[in-house]
Amino acid sequence: MTEPVTTPRAIRPDGLWLDDLAVGQRFVSEPYEVTKEAIVAFASDFDPQPYHLDSVAAAGTFFDGLVASGWHTAAITMRLLVQAFPVATGLIGADGHLTWPSAVIAGDIVHVEAVIEKLVPSRSRPDRASIMLFYQTKNQHDEVRHQSTLRMLAWRRPPDD
Amino acid sequence: MTEPVTTPRAIRPDGLWLDDLAVGQRFVSEPYEVTKEAIVAFASDFDPQPYHLDSVAAAGTFFDGLVASGWHTAAITMRLLVQAFPVATGLIGADGHLTWPSAVIAGDIVHVEAVIEKLVPSRSRPDRASIMLFYQTKNQHDEVRHQSTLRMLAWRRPPDD
Repeated sequence: MTEPVTTPRAIRPDGLWLDDLAVGQRFVSEPYEVTKEAIVAFASDFDPQPYHLDSVAAAGTFFDGLVASGWHTAAITMRLLVQAFPVATGLIGADGHLTWPSAVIAGDIVHVEAVIEKLVPSRSRPDRASIMLFYQTKNQHDEVRHQSTLRMLAWRRPPDD
Repeated sequence: MTEPVTTPRAIRPDGLWLDDLAVGQRFVSEPYEVTKEAIVAFASDFDPQPYHLDSVAAAGTFFDGLVASGWHTAAITMRLLVQAFPVATGLIGADGHLTWPSAVIAGDIVHVEAVIEKLVPSRSRPDRASIMLFYQTKNQHDEVRHQSTLRMLAWRRPPDD
């Protein structure tokens, strides 16, 4: 069944619609410094394991030192994507594949590099498509801390825009 | 090249080693209430989009109301997994596929249901394997808010344990 065409309201007046997007377009975020205090605060709330909470307790564990939770890294990445990739209707993730090739450490200054890998039109809803966005979160030494391909939703510019 | 056998230090004295794990084992977390204040606080830090920040600003957008960031839901899920799935060396995620079939709303009381789908022995390191953990984060009405298959690292119990 074909759903009615209902474009969500834009959340950014100058944001990008599907019409503005193309495979190969690149987006680079601002830098973001990850502090020890932020690592410990996030982990206390969401990932209370010794290697995310305390340098001394982390010794001898898999990471052998204090590292950020992978979910903290993913959350910081989202923050940077919201800044760098201004889709008109917002960044609405449907699903994705994530990896953490290495862990963020205190003092890392990370940024995100993203590229549109594919635009997949919806079969039933001609006003809509999926953006397949590939992105990497790198630190100041170009070490990849996080990598993902995320499917996000996008709409064509509505006629009255 | 075969790496030397170096088992990380356990972070939980009563935690599970690879020897204790089997395909089909299930783990269920405690419940966790998601408040409006927590949704807004997380979004302010990591996902500052109107539908995660303000009910009024969210009207007419894709979600048409205040919902939690998907990364908030993923982070809460990690917190619940840390409680529910006590791997001796800690929960160390390597990569995974995530979906958000629906969005968490204020007042949701979520829990996580996890099952070991596969145990994949390492070819080069006989002391090590990957756990393929499938899990769902559901609210009090059994609505699935988040779902993932995550690959995590596990080690055999060391001889001196």
